[in-house]
Amino acid sequence: MSETSTKQRIGVLTSGGDAPGMNAALRAVVLAAEHYGMEVVAFKHGYEGLLNNEHLPLKAADVLHVLQYSGTIIKSARCPRFKEVESAQLAAKNLTELGISALVVIGGDGSFRGAHHLSQHWNGQIIGVPGTIDNDLYGTDATIGYSTAVAIAMDALDKIRDTADAMDRVFIVEVMGRHAGFIGLKSAMAAGAERMILPELQKDKPLTIAALVKHIKRVEEVRGAGSYVMVLSEHQWPGGAVALSEQLEAEYSMPCRPCLLGHIQRGGPPTATDRVLASELGVHAIELILQGKTAVMTGIKAGQMVEVPLVDTWTKKNPLDANLLRIQHEIFNPVKKSARS
Amino acid sequence: MSETSTKQRIGVLTSGGDAPGMNAALRAVVLAAEHYGMEVVAFKHGYEGLLNNEHLPLKAADVLHVLQYSGTIIKSARCPRFKEVESAQLAAKNLTELGISALVVIGGDGSFRGAHHLSQHWNGQIIGVPGTIDNDLYGTDATIGYSTAVAIAMDALDKIRDTADAMDRVFIVEVMGRHAGFIGLKSAMAAGAERMILPELQKDKPLTIAALVKHIKRVEEVRGAGSYVMVLSEHQWPGGAVALSEQLEAEYSMPCRPCLLGHIQRGGPPTATDRVLASELGVHAIELILQGKTAVMTGIKAGQMVEVPLVDTWTKKNPLDANLLRIQHEIFNPVKKSARS
Amino acid sequence: MSETSTKQRIGVLTSGGDAPGMNAALRAVVLAAEHYGMEVVAFKHGYEGLLNNEHLPLKAADVLHVLQYSGTIIKSARCPRFKEVESAQLAAKNLTELGISALVVIGGDGSFRGAHHLSQHWNGQIIGVPGTIDNDLYGTDATIGYSTAVAIAMDALDKIRDTADAMDRVFIVEVMGRHAGFIGLKSAMAAGAERMILPELQKDKPLTIAALVKHIKRVEEVRGAGSYVMVLSEHQWPGGAVALSEQLEAEYSMPCRPCLLGHIQRGGPPTATDRVLASELGVHAIELILQGKTAVMTGIKAGQMVEVPLVDTWTKKNPLDANLLRIQHEIFNPVKKSARS
Amino acid sequence: MSETSTKQRIGVLTSGGDAPGMNAALRAVVLAAEHYGMEVVAFKHGYEGLLNNEHLPLKAADVLHVLQYSGTIIKSARCPRFKEVESAQLAAKNLTELGISALVVIGGDGSFRGAHHLSQHWNGQIIGVPGTIDNDLYGTDATIGYSTAVAIAMDALDKIRDTADAMDRVFIVEVMGRHAGFIGLKSAMAAGAERMILPELQKDKPLTIAALVKHIKRVEEVRGAGSYVMVLSEHQWPGGAVALSEQLEAEYSMPCRPCLLGHIQRGGPPTATDRVLASELGVHAIELILQGKTAVMTGIKAGQMVEVPLVDTWTKKNPLDANLLRIQHEIFNPVKKSARS
Repeated sequence: MSETSTKQRIGVLTSGGDAPGMNAALRAVVLAAEHYGMEVVAFKHGYEGLLNNEHLPLKAADVLHVLQYSGTIIKSARCPRFKEVESAQLAAKNLTELGISALVVIGGDGSFRGAHHLSQHWNGQIIGVPGTIDNDLYGTDATIGYSTAVAIAMDALDKIRDTADAMDRVFIVEVMGRHAGFIGLKSAMAAGAERMILPELQKDKPLTIAALVKHIKRVEEVRGAGSYVMVLSEHQWPGGAVALSEQLEAEYSMPCRPCLLGHIQRGGPPTATDRVLASELGVHAIELILQGKTAVMTGIKAGQMVEVPLVDTWTKKNPLDANLLRIQHEIFNPVKKSARS
Repeated sequence: MSETSTKQRIGVLTSGGDAPGMNAALRAVVLAAEHYGMEVVAFKHGYEGLLNNEHLPLKAADVLHVLQYSGTIIKSARCPRFKEVESAQLAAKNLTELGISALVVIGGDGSFRGAHHLSQHWNGQIIGVPGTIDNDLYGTDATIGYSTAVAIAMDALDKIRDTADAMDRVFIVEVMGRHAGFIGLKSAMAAGAERMILPELQKDKPLTIAALVKHIKRVEEVRGAGSYVMVLSEHQWPGGAVALSEQLEAEYSMPCRPCLLGHIQRGGPPTATDRVLASELGVHAIELILQGKTAVMTGIKAGQMVEVPLVDTWTKKNPLDANLLRIQHEIFNPVKKSARS
Repeated sequence: MSETSTKQRIGVLTSGGDAPGMNAALRAVVLAAEHYGMEVVAFKHGYEGLLNNEHLPLKAADVLHVLQYSGTIIKSARCPRFKEVESAQLAAKNLTELGISALVVIGGDGSFRGAHHLSQHWNGQIIGVPGTIDNDLYGTDATIGYSTAVAIAMDALDKIRDTADAMDRVFIVEVMGRHAGFIGLKSAMAAGAERMILPELQKDKPLTIAALVKHIKRVEEVRGAGSYVMVLSEHQWPGGAVALSEQLEAEYSMPCRPCLLGHIQRGGPPTATDRVLASELGVHAIELILQGKTAVMTGIKAGQMVEVPLVDTWTKKNPLDANLLRIQHEIFNPVKKSARS
Repeated sequence: MSETSTKQRIGVLTSGGDAPGMNAALRAVVLAAEHYGMEVVAFKHGYEGLLNNEHLPLKAADVLHVLQYSGTIIKSARCPRFKEVESAQLAAKNLTELGISALVVIGGDGSFRGAHHLSQHWNGQIIGVPGTIDNDLYGTDATIGYSTAVAIAMDALDKIRDTADAMDRVFIVEVMGRHAGFIGLKSAMAAGAERMILPELQKDKPLTIAALVKHIKRVEEVRGAGSYVMVLSEHQWPGGAVALSEQLEAEYSMPCRPCLLGHIQRGGPPTATDRVLASELGVHAIELILQGKTAVMTGIKAGQMVEVPLVDTWTKKNPLDANLLRIQHEIFNPVKKSARS
């Protein structure tokens, strides 16, 4: 890396669970940086690379045609030791020695906690870019990767519908979401699922198999024989879809088949929504640096770019869209009728 | 159709060019109507079916698993004769005789002109639901089908990139959009196209081949040999992508290959975005009827359901997103640098 | 159903687990039957419908545009009671009373056992069409649905590769195959998996976790850090991918994530291969009827249509392609070198 | 490149129009070569790179995860000057100086003519691997890329069907195939097209618009109103789908819409069929070198690996599958009935 450059130098890393569109965000960061006369240094493997001084320059040529791929070309990792003071100090030292004046962190809430921790020990600018399929960050209507995860879950549910309809069968598809029902709600609505089991819905009224069986039977009464597809958010049943399916068969003689999508939800070509969002957020991150901002996450609210204090992103809660929840849970629920009717 | 039903009866039709997600909107209309105790009558082939009294009842069972398919199960059509006074009067007569008190029209600006025309001759409620891939309706951030059309165009551009990169070649992909660059802009950004030719950009400065060739050559100077992918909105060049490609070869000896996506952009499984949007708008249409509204289109602005006078939808203009245009046209343009740099 | 038709009447049903392409086979049966002047009666829900006399006429108009969809428009089911003599007698009676002279059974080995059983009690012609994703029928190089199942498994593995590469992680993807490794082998090769666990490979040498961990570590030694993706055929590990993954973490501290594709492998648009195969086999089934054949399955061997005694299809074994197995297991195995090298 | 290696060194290049699966073939060549103790040198941009001595070593690490991408990581090109004697001599000189004893050429008939030309001036071994979407090489049942091109054409046709059905409209989709109807036939059958216009069908009886209009009208008579989708092979109508569509409207007032798929057919993730075929052929190419073969193409016939003299690949003709042609053109043609019926 040239020592003599007079350009402003910024760092970038991707951290935590990877999300489709991280590459598009990286590309936007690099293209915007070059547009404004900055140069970019990337750290590999998230904060691990920052601690190990594993870095490389990123230029336009390196990122031109990466936006159509999921994953992250600079790799990601979780880095538990980054919570320690020594780590933040080491990171600060490395950044300073490289002449980096601003760091862009692409990741989720754990990554932003790390960024906030670093900000206590380094006086450069830090900008967060929301990259997580879970959409569970306060201050932005959407995170990079969420749209793609929903698309993949919907596609799986569509496929399940084909076979479920052929056999008039019950299915459980387990989707991601950590502790939030965003993927579950949107994919359930998009695929016309008969049932969704989300943390937000089960919070006050934990699911019982008896209630589930009752719903399945009432749907059959109302509709006649047919398929019944259920979306189960992770962590909402001990043992997940596999265990719930076995219990339905064992305890209620109700044939049921499980699918566990797992990390499939993080791959494949990102949706246009994720690529465009990542492009906007990546550019905005660079423009926030130009404006002298720090310790904020860039986000999108009502179609506009916004900035949010990093601390807010994990201390405040991003609620599910109330209208979507109402529609899918009540209006499209075959066994709920309006008081009016 | 039972004569003795005491339920409120509403009509629904899909009109004009079909758009992915129209079936999801139909499903939402029917499920919401049943939820609120109404019954639904569908007219086939748009206004043609309204004039020909070609109708059928639609119940939940008819629409349960249609949201994953493009097209429209009640068919669509263009109906030039609906502009005539006699047509509106006949339609009004048919609606009245069927005991229909409200009509939901799913379509684009032509369909809404028809709806407005009908409203001069019928005193039932009329609610428009924006269904067009072009996204060219005032009053809503998105129309049903737009997201899917962008996804298909992006997928085609991704495929073109593969072969363009293998051969270091120039390509032109022609996309739809009638007289607006929404599909062109968003797919170009999502696919990282080197160039986009949109009505909004060419309006004041018509494209010349010389300028295009100059850009292609400057991009090659800046980047080195590589692929160059161009998105061309329809109606922006006489003869479209095929003619422009031939001219580039004939006049400038620049090998270039065209693709004409055409109606491919209207098919395949709708995106989650379109299905969810269609679901929200379809439900909202029914709820606007319950609220006594008429001659309005339901739309989404900044994530919220809104209503817009039908007349506004085609008399006012829906502009491209200025930030996206700036990013794709300037910041991601390899041959434009900021004044700062 | 007209009693006075003088046309030859044939029956058709889809039975057992549904497979993508069954609709294309149905369409081919109906179009070929009409071409040759026959008429077609379909039984719903497989042998259940034959016993319950649940039938409907199928004409060209009913099947024109179904070949792009998975599932089966006449539904499928398993029918354990069909093994009883009384069932075969009842089926024979129903077929005779409907004036059906030949029955086409689209399904897998269980369905063909049923067909053979029926042939002991009914003197009409019976033709089997191989429809199962498992490809485990003797006498045909491919079964309808196999290609689509492989395509879906490969797509899932591609998506897993994206995230596995981003995090340098180990993944297990569980695929279908009943007791044969066809889907496992072909999807593993198509996706470049580092490891496959197939019944044919484990038969003589059951898998141990210790051996698996050893392979993972040797691959890392040879290649350096990177992703490691494993394809696990169902029934090859107690508890499947979920259990194996947990054991790898618990016993060897090796982080690993599971996916369980399940019935996703039976949905979505069938591949061109499956649609074309189904079309050829469906036509051939009708032409075998014209030739007076019975108690045979139509199949494809070396690109040619063949007929196979029904009994052979489950009493003889369809082996994996030896060359594919050799290539994927030895030549592409990063830790096996030829003696020559 | 180490001068002192005692390993056998082989060369590889991809030439002519790129085809999905070329990367999978490259990977197989490299992995098999390493398995057998050889090392691989790749030339970039096909024969151009061979003439310009533009080469790089390829090792397993370079090709591990490329099989899921279309295009070719070593780029391809057409090279008209390679027909000259001086070019072949220069190529021979470059190969000899690099110590290369065998060359693998991945491409189509033009590339194999080049390989044959080179074989007159160089005494190393030359093995062809069939890589072209057109499937027009004698001696192999399938070429790398053909399956993917069919899949993409089918997907486009499926999408067209959605909108064609919604509007009861006529569509023309133009597909590739150079001078052979393989892609046209298979995609037409897979998508259930009403009509296909292939070189093999038009050879003796050129298409007229009058005959086409007659067919469209007869189909409508037989079936009733509905969609009519036509697959047009390239070079079968002056001006292609766009011109034919305009003429149908202008001369017969028959509304019709065109699509021109173009190079879209060469991109996206290769199908499992293409990846597995490319893997087998790439390995076989190396094994043919070990067996001392030269001036042959590796191919697949009836599921077995075969070798074919290079000269045969373009001097003999690969016919369409007669059974598929018969089925799609006669049995599935709604206006042709068997003499029997």
